[in-house]
Amino acid sequence: MATTSKKKTAGLADIIAGESAICTVGKHGKGLNYRGYAIEDLATQASFEEVAYLLLYNKLPTRAELTRYNQRLQSLRAIPDPLKETLEKIPATAHPMDVLRTACSLLGCLEPETDFSQQHGIADRLLAVLPSLLLYWRRFHADHQRIDTRTEAASTGEYFLKLLTGKTPDKTHIDAMNVSLVLYAEHEFNASTFAARVAASTLADFYSAVVAAIGALRGPLHGGANEAAMELIQRFQSPEEVAPALKAALARKEKIMGFGHRVYKTSDPRSPIIKEWSRKLSTLCGDTVIFPVSEAIEQFMWHEKQLFPNLDFYSASAYFFMGIPVMLYTPIFVCSRITGWAAHIMEQRANNALIRPGSHYTGPEPRAFIPVDQRK
Amino acid sequence: MATTSKKKTAGLADIIAGESAICTVGKHGKGLNYRGYAIEDLATQASFEEVAYLLLYNKLPTRAELTRYNQRLQSLRAIPDPLKETLEKIPATAHPMDVLRTACSLLGCLEPETDFSQQHGIADRLLAVLPSLLLYWRRFHADHQRIDTRTEAASTGEYFLKLLTGKTPDKTHIDAMNVSLVLYAEHEFNASTFAARVAASTLADFYSAVVAAIGALRGPLHGGANEAAMELIQRFQSPEEVAPALKAALARKEKIMGFGHRVYKTSDPRSPIIKEWSRKLSTLCGDTVIFPVSEAIEQFMWHEKQLFPNLDFYSASAYFFMGIPVMLYTPIFVCSRITGWAAHIMEQRANNALIRPGSHYTGPEPRAFIPVDQRK
Repeated sequence: MATTSKKKTAGLADIIAGESAICTVGKHGKGLNYRGYAIEDLATQASFEEVAYLLLYNKLPTRAELTRYNQRLQSLRAIPDPLKETLEKIPATAHPMDVLRTACSLLGCLEPETDFSQQHGIADRLLAVLPSLLLYWRRFHADHQRIDTRTEAASTGEYFLKLLTGKTPDKTHIDAMNVSLVLYAEHEFNASTFAARVAASTLADFYSAVVAAIGALRGPLHGGANEAAMELIQRFQSPEEVAPALKAALARKEKIMGFGHRVYKTSDPRSPIIKEWSRKLSTLCGDTVIFPVSEAIEQFMWHEKQLFPNLDFYSASAYFFMGIPVMLYTPIFVCSRITGWAAHIMEQRANNALIRPGSHYTGPEPRAFIPVDQRK
Repeated sequence: MATTSKKKTAGLADIIAGESAICTVGKHGKGLNYRGYAIEDLATQASFEEVAYLLLYNKLPTRAELTRYNQRLQSLRAIPDPLKETLEKIPATAHPMDVLRTACSLLGCLEPETDFSQQHGIADRLLAVLPSLLLYWRRFHADHQRIDTRTEAASTGEYFLKLLTGKTPDKTHIDAMNVSLVLYAEHEFNASTFAARVAASTLADFYSAVVAAIGALRGPLHGGANEAAMELIQRFQSPEEVAPALKAALARKEKIMGFGHRVYKTSDPRSPIIKEWSRKLSTLCGDTVIFPVSEAIEQFMWHEKQLFPNLDFYSASAYFFMGIPVMLYTPIFVCSRITGWAAHIMEQRANNALIRPGSHYTGPEPRAFIPVDQRK
């Protein structure tokens, strides 16, 4: 195949890698719709479970369907014993994304997908059980407790916060978590979703595709950004410290996480939504530093670099105000994005083409083999 | 971003997704070089460990370097206790690729990559330990034995066969395994390698990228093809049965696995090499059915569809003649391709761009949100 017929595109920016009916990201540089519904409407009027249903079953549920779906998810929160035992053996110092990746993979050994007709059941199971897997491990090591994950918490947000603390969560926290889960649910061909589609395109099983996605989400250029943003914010004791320190950081060519986006060119439509929740939670907990510092960083980045905050930036402080440990920020992203990943895996399967690009070769020309004893 | 500036390319066929200096596949529709060395030379003159060294360290080792490298790999074959315990809990009925995916992920929890400077050490560790992980699980369930994986077997091929059977392997079998591992080691931007690069492009850890690759390799359109080929071959008792049955299968639009290739257009250069080994092993074990049936399938597919056998087709019968269970064929592919994956992960990191394509939206136009109690 002549390489001249190929287009050279590192990172595949601006390359269309397939069709998708799931969401629109940044048409005209802004805006986000899930299956036609604006993210602003979904974040203010829908529960995360409604959005999950929309993504997985391609319609907004009726009240009866939503009730049944919530009951179904509640019934799928238990962890099989061999998986609990493995979670107990994974060290307390492990990266929580490694824990989720491993737990999801092991679940695929214990409850394998033997036929693609099982895919909706597996998607629901993962949506229901991922917080259990994460927080069973967390509480076992942090609190020396073997928690019962079969809670009757009505929503995924409540369920997550209840497992995390063992206490009935504050209503505002539940609402904030719900919005956060809605905002993180789906985002077209981002790197983790694309990794899932590459795996799915070989007709691998559902878990293999999800595990590939978790692995891709782990990196600081993707899901890891919300944790990196929090680490940045916590460097400062007051808004006044921000500008000089960030000027120096930019001069050192340090990357400031939580700003800009591959697809959005003018703003991230999710950012103002989570920012208002962060402001509300800041007031609720009496914060006088983190939120003002965050705004100072936002202003500096816009003034100096014309970069806008993306979803990760104010998600970080919102989680912080809810008392969620920083190491769990990216795993929350997993608990939400499983819905988008699952929708994309099903969509890839429904109209599959093996995803197999080419590369531009920059290595040595053909050369003669030299037997081992003649090498220098 | 205007969609008109994007190119629509499902499967990314003919799209260049980045630069690579590791291998050339199918220039002019044929041929395969690893870092400039022809696959024919490597398969006849090099050990798999030499090829691994070439891929991972970018040069053929001297005798002293190769001796040290072999000793190093031998020293890295032990399995940590928590991982052994998990392997014992994974059911005997699990898919061996799910086992490898899980074991590799769990190793990433127990021996995490905390800095990219550790990447060569992790690549060597995985190369050394993957057969241990697979065969510890296998022998525990198949033979009720907790095998000691710290063998002194000199080569990866010998080590694999020794762990599998518990006996000293036949010299011809060791040589055949070595060739097979060389042939499977690397193949540019195939789907599993590309999945690894997508994960690596977010700056995720090494294990996340490898786990993504294992997941992608599992599918029957990729690594799973060698198992599917063996299932096909075993349908027939004689070469005469082949043509009428395959004619009927093609009429039913059944896909015949092990033939044709996305990149090679005229032949797979690896196929004649493994075919001769399959022929030799067939003679050695007194086979009078499998090899003649395989040749009849090859002739039929060329005559009817002008499709040539790819590496997977004669690898299947070669493994069969060595007494390797069919379920382990794709895992052997993992034990070899870990070298190529690792080389690509390192290459991606050295000149990184986040791999994030776009999609062509085919979903509903923007629509108004309907509150849950008003839906029908």
